Amino acid sequence: MVINYWGNTKGRRHMLALYHHGTSVCAAKPRLVLAEKGIEWESRYVDILANEQFAPEYLALNPEGVVPTLMHDGQVIRESTLICEYLDAVFPETPLVPDDALSRYEMRLWTMRMDKEHPLNVGPLTFAISHRHGVLRHGDDAVDKYINAMGPAQVERRQRMLSADIEAPGPKASLKICDKLLGDMEVVLGERSWLSGEEFSLADIGVIPYINRLDMLQLSGMWTEARPQVTDWFERVKSRASYLPAMFEFVPPPLTALMKEKGAEAWPRAEAILAELEKSAYGA
Amino acid sequence: MVINYWGNTKGRRHMLALYHHGTSVCAAKPRLVLAEKGIEWESRYVDILANEQFAPEYLALNPEGVVPTLMHDGQVIRESTLICEYLDAVFPETPLVPDDALSRYEMRLWTMRMDKEHPLNVGPLTFAISHRHGVLRHGDDAVDKYINAMGPAQVERRQRMLSADIEAPGPKASLKICDKLLGDMEVVLGERSWLSGEEFSLADIGVIPYINRLDMLQLSGMWTEARPQVTDWFERVKSRASYLPAMFEFVPPPLTALMKEKGAEAWPRAEAILAELEKSAYGA
Repeated sequence: MVINYWGNTKGRRHMLALYHHGTSVCAAKPRLVLAEKGIEWESRYVDILANEQFAPEYLALNPEGVVPTLMHDGQVIRESTLICEYLDAVFPETPLVPDDALSRYEMRLWTMRMDKEHPLNVGPLTFAISHRHGVLRHGDDAVDKYINAMGPAQVERRQRMLSADIEAPGPKASLKICDKLLGDMEVVLGERSWLSGEEFSLADIGVIPYINRLDMLQLSGMWTEARPQVTDWFERVKSRASYLPAMFEFVPPPLTALMKEKGAEAWPRAEAILAELEKSAYGA
Repeated sequence: MVINYWGNTKGRRHMLALYHHGTSVCAAKPRLVLAEKGIEWESRYVDILANEQFAPEYLALNPEGVVPTLMHDGQVIRESTLICEYLDAVFPETPLVPDDALSRYEMRLWTMRMDKEHPLNVGPLTFAISHRHGVLRHGDDAVDKYINAMGPAQVERRQRMLSADIEAPGPKASLKICDKLLGDMEVVLGERSWLSGEEFSLADIGVIPYINRLDMLQLSGMWTEARPQVTDWFERVKSRASYLPAMFEFVPPPLTALMKEKGAEAWPRAEAILAELEKSAYGA
């Protein structure tokens, strides 16, 4: 095992490596924490688009086959939300967990919500709007490979995913969940500067990768048009020094381009779905 | 609002009330924390068997309509795991969150696991083995009432639930998940006294209500026969002063009796399913 980086804080040296991938919303959270705290770390890139998370060496560290995983002084730390809490405890400078019990509770209510919603949040939307086109445009061989990659039991589901656009039940539900999240954020950010209080915290870090994904998919109209508090919050997020290195350094450029191109095409339909949702909410 | 109890710690007086129910595994967790810390609290019983959690006054506090909810000095605190963390922060005597970052991470890995598994854990098993008989034995009117309680969209699902015994896919999967949990506990408890280290913590509290439910359903053979570490752990749990008041004071006695009666009847079939599982695991 080659160790390239050593975090250095208060004279103590740490071996710190993150197994991660550029397009995983969960992997972006510890990258944000590390950037906020200015801690050096070793990048161990796991290409989830090439199924590297299912390699036996990785499964030995992370039996669920998901990114991220943190290695710290020989300890394996899993689950993005717990990795962030752990990093804040081990590297207490630039604290990202509020001091008082109530704000800490508010913070964890956000991080728990994002963990709960995760499978239904931006994932289905990203695939329907963008990533499935990345498979489809590479022709029959790429499609066959994708469909069969998870074994016979998943073939039908994967075929369905390749043909599901933003109007399909899964992606549509995903759009609705994101809209509800933005609506709840708008209310809370009318009362405080950041999601769990007056200080930037793990609550914001838990949400940023999801809003950033919507932004990359050209869906920012979901807040810029009628949610001034979220708009202001996201501007402040983007102006932080942590934003660019944590959110963009590791995203494959062709994927960024695909999300931009296909997102722009999808926006009018997304907008129509959202208008319909709003109408039915008012009519109810 | 009538306040009966005031927690008293270090001279400061707190208004502390817990909305809870005797058969909810989640509600038992904060009761364990309160009992461990010796804090007085006001009980606000929400009869989930009579759908009181869907009353508008309760939904105003807890929009998801689940127990428990904590009221502390006018603040509403939701989510059993976050309530436990909050109580430990506000009442730091008799700490239940470990001091060091690594043990705290281990603790949260257990509480997060229980939150994730919750819908598939002891719930389907309890209903299949015991609670559905509580409906069925009260005759056609009770059955009609149960089937229609959640509106027309849920009728078919509720009919299926009433006829699903321990061999049905849901309850069988639930038995398997509990068996996996016990297996993982056995390994960890071979290395340490309690789930997150040498001290009793919120990790143990997150798991106790589930193991206790299996015990009430007469399924303790799942550990007493071949899992000595879990057996010893549960004996130590039961000998703690917190156990009886937190786990039994609020359970309706007829329900305890029903679980005991129907659980004893179900054990031979549960044992056969588990033997089959073990055989297929070894054969794989």
